Amino acid sequence: MDCIFCRIAAGEIPAQIVYQNEDVVAFRDVNPQSPVHVLVIPREHVQGPLALGDGHAALAGKLIAAAAEVARQEGIAESGYRLVMNEGRQAQQSVFHVHLHVLGGRPMHWPPG
Amino acid sequence: MDCIFCRIAAGEIPAQIVYQNEDVVAFRDVNPQSPVHVLVIPREHVQGPLALGDGHAALAGKLIAAAAEVARQEGIAESGYRLVMNEGRQAQQSVFHVHLHVLGGRPMHWPPG
Repeated sequence: MDCIFCRIAAGEIPAQIVYQNEDVVAFRDVNPQSPVHVLVIPREHVQGPLALGDGHAALAGKLIAAAAEVARQEGIAESGYRLVMNEGRQAQQSVFHVHLHVLGGRPMHWPPG
Repeated sequence: MDCIFCRIAAGEIPAQIVYQNEDVVAFRDVNPQSPVHVLVIPREHVQGPLALGDGHAALAGKLIAAAAEVARQEGIAESGYRLVMNEGRQAQQSVFHVHLHVLGGRPMHWPPG
């Protein structure tokens, strides 16, 4: 199992986990870009948003639902938050296990990168 | 019906629609931030990602699935694309009908705004 996010989900690599359920795990990004920066990943290994959209729509919904829970727990549900998923090289996807960035706690700018 | 995105979905306001099905409509952002910049919205009025996550997870999955279809159609599935959803003031949500930004066709930077 070479995938670092699979290993985090399995508890083999430590992470600051803030939320989890049977389908997803949420933990703090090690290189945070905002006061709150959490990654929500599925336990199942899915490569990226494209694969997620093509055959795992229900799982995609669970990521968004978990993000709402994380936002509430982190106190950014009302002030606002940005959700980001990167597919492939040009979008700077760095780990090829799909992850939903939840960013908040500061004003976010436009364009989104 | 005051919501501009509800009116686009209903065909009352013109938009450059690139994809649609019974649940979602995808159209070009009028203020594009990348060579490809499409918004995917549900036909149903849902305020933002928080409400989407709280009670409409299946619909969230349909947005991600439609985004994959749009990416393929727009020729950015392989080069890569970024998906963004904004909740509330600090994230600069500007229309309070949830919309998934699909951005690609150029390198995207980090942080995402």
